[in-house]
Amino acid sequence: MTKSETAIFKSQGFGKSMGLGEAPALVIVDFVVAFDDPKLFGGGNIHPAVEKTVELLAFFRQQKYPVAYTRYVFAEDGSDGNLLTTKVPNLKILTENNPVGMVVSELTPRPGELIVRKRNASAFFQTDFSSWLARHRIDTLVVTGAVTSGCVRATVVDALGYGYRPIVVTDCVGDRAIAPHDASLFDMQQKYADLYNCAELIAALKNRNKVAAE
Amino acid sequence: MTKSETAIFKSQGFGKSMGLGEAPALVIVDFVVAFDDPKLFGGGNIHPAVEKTVELLAFFRQQKYPVAYTRYVFAEDGSDGNLLTTKVPNLKILTENNPVGMVVSELTPRPGELIVRKRNASAFFQTDFSSWLARHRIDTLVVTGAVTSGCVRATVVDALGYGYRPIVVTDCVGDRAIAPHDASLFDMQQKYADLYNCAELIAALKNRNKVAAE
Amino acid sequence: MTKSETAIFKSQGFGKSMGLGEAPALVIVDFVVAFDDPKLFGGGNIHPAVEKTVELLAFFRQQKYPVAYTRYVFAEDGSDGNLLTTKVPNLKILTENNPVGMVVSELTPRPGELIVRKRNASAFFQTDFSSWLARHRIDTLVVTGAVTSGCVRATVVDALGYGYRPIVVTDCVGDRAIAPHDASLFDMQQKYADLYNCAELIAALKNRNKVAAE
Amino acid sequence: MTKSETAIFKSQGFGKSMGLGEAPALVIVDFVVAFDDPKLFGGGNIHPAVEKTVELLAFFRQQKYPVAYTRYVFAEDGSDGNLLTTKVPNLKILTENNPVGMVVSELTPRPGELIVRKRNASAFFQTDFSSWLARHRIDTLVVTGAVTSGCVRATVVDALGYGYRPIVVTDCVGDRAIAPHDASLFDMQQKYADLYNCAELIAALKNRNKVAAE
Repeated sequence: MTKSETAIFKSQGFGKSMGLGEAPALVIVDFVVAFDDPKLFGGGNIHPAVEKTVELLAFFRQQKYPVAYTRYVFAEDGSDGNLLTTKVPNLKILTENNPVGMVVSELTPRPGELIVRKRNASAFFQTDFSSWLARHRIDTLVVTGAVTSGCVRATVVDALGYGYRPIVVTDCVGDRAIAPHDASLFDMQQKYADLYNCAELIAALKNRNKVAAE
Repeated sequence: MTKSETAIFKSQGFGKSMGLGEAPALVIVDFVVAFDDPKLFGGGNIHPAVEKTVELLAFFRQQKYPVAYTRYVFAEDGSDGNLLTTKVPNLKILTENNPVGMVVSELTPRPGELIVRKRNASAFFQTDFSSWLARHRIDTLVVTGAVTSGCVRATVVDALGYGYRPIVVTDCVGDRAIAPHDASLFDMQQKYADLYNCAELIAALKNRNKVAAE
Repeated sequence: MTKSETAIFKSQGFGKSMGLGEAPALVIVDFVVAFDDPKLFGGGNIHPAVEKTVELLAFFRQQKYPVAYTRYVFAEDGSDGNLLTTKVPNLKILTENNPVGMVVSELTPRPGELIVRKRNASAFFQTDFSSWLARHRIDTLVVTGAVTSGCVRATVVDALGYGYRPIVVTDCVGDRAIAPHDASLFDMQQKYADLYNCAELIAALKNRNKVAAE
Repeated sequence: MTKSETAIFKSQGFGKSMGLGEAPALVIVDFVVAFDDPKLFGGGNIHPAVEKTVELLAFFRQQKYPVAYTRYVFAEDGSDGNLLTTKVPNLKILTENNPVGMVVSELTPRPGELIVRKRNASAFFQTDFSSWLARHRIDTLVVTGAVTSGCVRATVVDALGYGYRPIVVTDCVGDRAIAPHDASLFDMQQKYADLYNCAELIAALKNRNKVAAE
C-alpha cells in the first residue's frame, strides 16, 4: 500500500483501539489436521502459528479462561452441503470422523472445552458460540487459527457485531499465502480488531490482572 | 502474490463457480454521500464504481428484479453505539437525517425498493434483509457498493452462508485504497463469490433470460 | 376463552390468512422416540399425531417437495449444555447416538432429506435450516411434530420472521397435555400461522397444482 | 389443566429453576400507547401491568441496571412489510412517528436507555438487542410488557437461547385476553423462564446485593 493510501485511513479516523475488557476467552479457529497440511488446505505460515498457539493455550488454561475450538463438520451423506461447498468442494471431506478434520494433536481439546461445529467461515454463523460466550459473560474474544483471510477474519467481523471485542494474535494466525494474511491483518486492525502478538498479549493480560488485584 | 502462492489455491480446489441462479436481486451497499466523499469515508476507486452502478441499477429496474440499498444509521443520542463505533468513531455521524448518510443522488431509491438500516458491516447482520430475500424467493445476490474490503465483503460472506449465491460486480464496487480492494476481490473469488464486471453480468443475465424463454 | 375475549382478536384485525405460496417444504419437529414415549417426554395426543404424519410425509415425498426433520442433540460430555438444559435437565439424554433421540421408525428419514440438529426449541435457532430453505427457494413451511406449545410453536414463530409462511397441520402436531396444545393452536392461528388439518392441506396442495397446470 | 396433565410435567423433569445471575437488565416489551388501548391492540390485564412496571422500572434505574424498551416500527411506505403484517395488517400503523407506537408516558425512556425497533414478536429477532446485552455483560433478563402470549413469550424463548436467563415478572406482563396470558405463563415456567411477581423480584435482587456486599 502506498503512503498516501495508509494516510487516508488515519485521516478518516479508522483504527482506534478498543482495549482489553474484563473477561477474555480464547477461540482456536480451524487448527485441524487438514489446515495444517499443505497438501489439503494448509501451507504458508500456518504451521508456525499452530506451534505458537501452544504457548497461548497453556496460558489461557492456567488462568482458567474459557477455551473454544472450531471445526468444519459436514454430513457423510452430503445432505448439508451448502454454497460454500459448491465454491470449495473439497471442504466436504471434513466429516465428523475423518481424522483430517480433527484438531491438531498439539492443541488437543480437554474435557469441558467447547468444540464448535460449523459449515461456514465464521465460528458464530448458525452455531451456539455466541450463546456460550454470553453464558460465560465474556467481553473479549482472543482469536487464533487459520486462515487469516478466511475463517479467522469472518469470526472477527462477527465477534465485533455480537459485542465481543476481538483481539487477533498476529503470530497465532496463519494463511496458506502471505499476501492475503497481511491484507486481512491490515483490514482487521483498521476496522474490526485490536492486534497483539502472543508475547504482548500475555504480558498485557498479566499486567491487567496485577492491576486488578491491587 | 507469487505464482506459487496462486497455485496453491488451484491445487487445493478453491474458486469453483457457483453459476447464476434463477432469481437475482441487487444490493447497493453503502453508496451514501459520506462514502463517496474522500474527506469523510471515500476515496480510491469508489466514485467510478458509483457511476458504473447507475447502469446496472437501470438494468435491474427494467427487468423488475428486486433492489435494496444499505445505509449505516446510528441514533442521534448515541444509545446504540457499538464496538464498531468504538473502533471507527466517525461512523456515528451517520444518523437517520444527516444528509451525508443518505444514498447518493445518482442512485436515489424509488418507492418500494428496500432500504436496509444497519449498524455493522454486513447488510445481513441484525437486519431484515435475509427475510426480504426469502419472501422474494431470491437465489442470487448481486453485490455492488463500498467498500470492497469492508461492508461489501462482509455482505458477501453472509450471503453465501444464508444461501444466496453472491455475485460481486468488480467495477461496481470500490474502496478507499486499491490494495485492500484487490486483495478482497481475490479472496472473494477464491472462497465466497463469483466475479463479473458490469457488462459481463448484464450480458449473462440477458442470455439466461433468452435461453429460459426458448 | 370467553366470547368477548375471542371477539377482541377479531375486532383488532388478528388472524388473517397468508395463503399457500408456490413452493412448500415439510418439517417434522422432534418426532423422536423420546417425544413419542410418555415415560420420557411424550404423552397427550403426540402418538396419534405421529401416525397421521405418516400420510402427510408420503404425500410430500411423492410430490418431491423437500423434507426436513429436527432432533435435539447434546454432546456426551455436557460441554454444550445451555440454559434450556438447566431448565429441563432431562433433555441432556438426547445425544447423537442415544436411540431415544432418533426419529421414530414410522418416519425414518431417507438419504438426501435434511436432519437439523438443534439445542433449543426452534428448528431455526443457531442451525442451517433457514439457509437450506433459501437454497431450495421455499416460501411455505408446513410444520408438524411435537410439542405444539414448545418446539412446534417456536419453529412457527421463527419461520414467520425468516419469511417462510408457516402452515400448522393440526392433527400432525401433538403435546403432552391438551390445554397447552389448544392454547398454542389458538395463538398461532391469530398471530403466526395458517391452520389446516392433514386432509385439508393435501387437498389444497393438490388443487393448487391442478390450477397451476391449467 | 387436569391434575394428571400437570403431573406429567413434573414427572418428566420440567420446570427447574435457573436462579438469578449476577448482572440483570430490564426489558419492557411493547408497552406503547397502542398496546395500552383496547381499541387498538390492548385490553385484558395490560393496563394494570403497565402501572406495576412503573415501580419495577424505578428500582432498576435506582440500581443503575441497564434498561431497554421495544417498539414495533414499520416504514411509512410499506417497503418493509413482512409476513407478520400479512397476518396482522393493523400492525403497519406502528411507524416511527405515529404517537400510538411510542412508549406510554408512565414509562418514558430516558437518554441512554436503549430503544429496540423491531418488526417481529421477539426483541431479539433481527435487532441489536443481544449485542447490547453482551456488551453490558448481562446474564439475567427481566422481562415485562405486552402481550404475554406474543412478544413477551417470543422474547423469553430467544433470551434463553441467546444465553440470558429470562425472568418473567407475572404482574408486569399483560395480554388482551386472560386465557392466553395464563397458558403462556404456564408454558414459560415449565420450559423457558423463572417466574416472580414484582415484589418478590425486588426483594430477591435486594437480598442478593446484600449477600454480595457481605
